Amino acid sequence: MAAPAKLTEYIDQNADKFIDRLAKAVAIPSVSGDASYRQHVFDMATYLKAELESLGVKVTLVELGKQMLDGQEIQLPPAILGEIGNDKNKKTVGLYAHYDVQPALITDGWDTDPFKLCVDKETGRLIGRGSSDDKGPLLGWINVLEAHVKQGIELPVNLKICFEGMEESGSEGLDELIQREAGPGKFFDGVDCFCISDNYWLNTRTPCLTYGLRGICYYKLTITGPGRDLHSGVFGRMVHEPMTDLIQVMSKLVTPQGDILVPGINDLVAPLTDEERKRYESLDYSIDDVDASAGASIAVASDISTVLMNRMRYPSLSLHGIEGAFYAPGAKTVIPAKVSGKFSIRLVPDMLPVDVDRLVIDYVQKCFAQLNSKNKVEVENLHGGKPWMADPTHWNYVAASKATEAVYGRKPDLTREGGSIPVTLTFAEALGVNVLLLPMGRGDDGAHSTNEKLDRSNYIQGTKLLGTYLWEVSKCA
Amino acid sequence: MAAPAKLTEYIDQNADKFIDRLAKAVAIPSVSGDASYRQHVFDMATYLKAELESLGVKVTLVELGKQMLDGQEIQLPPAILGEIGNDKNKKTVGLYAHYDVQPALITDGWDTDPFKLCVDKETGRLIGRGSSDDKGPLLGWINVLEAHVKQGIELPVNLKICFEGMEESGSEGLDELIQREAGPGKFFDGVDCFCISDNYWLNTRTPCLTYGLRGICYYKLTITGPGRDLHSGVFGRMVHEPMTDLIQVMSKLVTPQGDILVPGINDLVAPLTDEERKRYESLDYSIDDVDASAGASIAVASDISTVLMNRMRYPSLSLHGIEGAFYAPGAKTVIPAKVSGKFSIRLVPDMLPVDVDRLVIDYVQKCFAQLNSKNKVEVENLHGGKPWMADPTHWNYVAASKATEAVYGRKPDLTREGGSIPVTLTFAEALGVNVLLLPMGRGDDGAHSTNEKLDRSNYIQGTKLLGTYLWEVSKCA
Repeated sequence: MAAPAKLTEYIDQNADKFIDRLAKAVAIPSVSGDASYRQHVFDMATYLKAELESLGVKVTLVELGKQMLDGQEIQLPPAILGEIGNDKNKKTVGLYAHYDVQPALITDGWDTDPFKLCVDKETGRLIGRGSSDDKGPLLGWINVLEAHVKQGIELPVNLKICFEGMEESGSEGLDELIQREAGPGKFFDGVDCFCISDNYWLNTRTPCLTYGLRGICYYKLTITGPGRDLHSGVFGRMVHEPMTDLIQVMSKLVTPQGDILVPGINDLVAPLTDEERKRYESLDYSIDDVDASAGASIAVASDISTVLMNRMRYPSLSLHGIEGAFYAPGAKTVIPAKVSGKFSIRLVPDMLPVDVDRLVIDYVQKCFAQLNSKNKVEVENLHGGKPWMADPTHWNYVAASKATEAVYGRKPDLTREGGSIPVTLTFAEALGVNVLLLPMGRGDDGAHSTNEKLDRSNYIQGTKLLGTYLWEVSKCA
Repeated sequence: MAAPAKLTEYIDQNADKFIDRLAKAVAIPSVSGDASYRQHVFDMATYLKAELESLGVKVTLVELGKQMLDGQEIQLPPAILGEIGNDKNKKTVGLYAHYDVQPALITDGWDTDPFKLCVDKETGRLIGRGSSDDKGPLLGWINVLEAHVKQGIELPVNLKICFEGMEESGSEGLDELIQREAGPGKFFDGVDCFCISDNYWLNTRTPCLTYGLRGICYYKLTITGPGRDLHSGVFGRMVHEPMTDLIQVMSKLVTPQGDILVPGINDLVAPLTDEERKRYESLDYSIDDVDASAGASIAVASDISTVLMNRMRYPSLSLHGIEGAFYAPGAKTVIPAKVSGKFSIRLVPDMLPVDVDRLVIDYVQKCFAQLNSKNKVEVENLHGGKPWMADPTHWNYVAASKATEAVYGRKPDLTREGGSIPVTLTFAEALGVNVLLLPMGRGDDGAHSTNEKLDRSNYIQGTKLLGTYLWEVSKCA
């Protein structure tokens, strides 16, 4: 059952209106990882609730309790639970997207204000924080609902919507909510399959469906010593300096080629089979694609299968930065008293966060002990999530594949992703249903980066894809 | 010739007024290392000009040209040249202090607003950025002038004042000014000796005179690769990550014990003699003092002479921080595209910046090449200054020693300092006169650090010391 032509016509005719909707959402800087932005995250939830309700969705903002952030106890943003349709003869599709975003400052290197959507008519790019991750995809569902309402077409499925505001900060509180609402008679009862729109095509030309995600363990490694910051002239070479110790320990975590140096980590990774290797060789992706999306020729290998496997089926360790040290332009001659290195490990089957934590914490403490420093070390896991894999032959995937063919005229690539959306696994395990990742944006969108964008065509065709997917699901076995 | 009793009486009676003067100066955030604060540095110069003129000083604000800072070309703060007295029968004393300060944000860990002087009645501490480095000492001279004017006492010497606004950022433009004004008939012509008030006692109890300073070379080591920041999920282990490379190179610069790993650096250091070692053993300083001033038991050795020599007569290398990486609280999963490590080396005789630059740049490039990374490296020296030593038996030091005995009732320690005031060397070399460092504050003042303070007694007794020094100089051979 293809989607009615009236739907796709409406979407084409209202493209500019949908872009205005995205601009409104981007203008709310709903950064979940910074306490000073928390009110904006709440504002975003309120805005979405009103939009959904105006389209006939029954909405509840669910309080998720409190968290400690930046030294203060603050309220978590609510989860948005929405429900439309209750027809026993229809399938019920669960939808997930998130309405929070990564931090962004124009001084990070943005060409335009990150929280003012820049519509580049020439390139068709919609530039702004959250355009692609994940406000565009989230609004895609709202656009689909609007198209049905405005064209007077009944939805082919029932929907159970779950939009969250803490995805970029470990999805605090959401797992518990999903567990709580998973039983008989609860909110998610009756969901037949789940669709998550929060990832990207592998490249810039081939739509894909994603059946695997890496997990993550995010660490904060803190070294403390002096009672306060010290003057490097007065104290340099008199005392053990926390930055020196921290840099030593951080330098022992990963090689420039990306090999993780924490003993035992690699033993946790599921072995590679020949058949699996072939799957990576068939993907539409090249070293040129890596270079284009990274903006430079910096791939760690010349063999594309190796590079893709490094992203999809091997763990990675990235050093993100240091909190507490001098970070501004210019030259400050300080010995910082307390410095925290931030790094994360992306997990793949069969790595469990609990095992990774044990190995990392032991190793960091061992490395620090070898320094013979009188400073003190502390390592903590700020957040974590297991890796996830689904069955890509399930009818949920078949429906998405047919919808892709209908909208884009080609079969999608079947991919695994390097990023983490920990809640995917929670939906799969708690609801016991197949979960599909149906991406809207392209591989070069620059999620989490400066000048994040969503192509206009991906936003509009992507909205059609989401709508068509619902119609394809409705007729699948 | 002791200072007239009326002077010290006036200083005691007007202590609170002098503290108000310090509060006013601290309230102007004259941070020289950040372009967005530049107007405040100018405001500080204007304020000081008015103060000096009201006390009879003939003042010129000398423009020093422009600089590049934070990617923009901006005007340098002016040097303040002041002149009072022109009596051929009197000695002429040159005075130097600086009116700019290090950056400070309350989020760095200050207990109070760094730019609002906190007068702690209980401890006698005057807390605020610049209280000790170097607004308190600078205002000490203004207090001394006021005491003479208000008590109707003629100054015993002529003064040539040079206050600068770029000391914390490499004294840009000042060297050229001093060279320019050093000849016959120029501003500094006729100066018999120089007094700089911009350092600290070694401990918290014994006044000192300082006859040596370390120099500095401040480096920015930049690694670039990706065209923009990348998502660590999507790109982790696919590309060479600038942070990984940077941390590797930074880890090869210095050991946790403070030994510099750059080959050839240690060969530049003047050898230690037995006699010199004895001088360090006689200083009033202990490991307990190190611990107390650092706020923790983190001295790199248990032998105090070793620790003091590490500060006074050996070079040190400190890692200050990283520009461009994630530095905020929370967990951001970014691969930064461009990261710059900041580190500095403190120089001692006979190290020359040009030699140190060559060794550091060669070594950094060699270390980077060994990483086999496709990223790019760049090293630049942001600013530098040679080390300095003076003859501590000169009459300038004898006068300061007598003044110290008159005010504090004890002989001062003769010390060398770990910090850098590059202009000291310029005054010594360009004017060919003896230069004295006459500190006002204590070793635990926390210059460049959070909660910087100046003790009330040091400010008030220190003002007396500066005044008494002028009277002692006036009668010295």
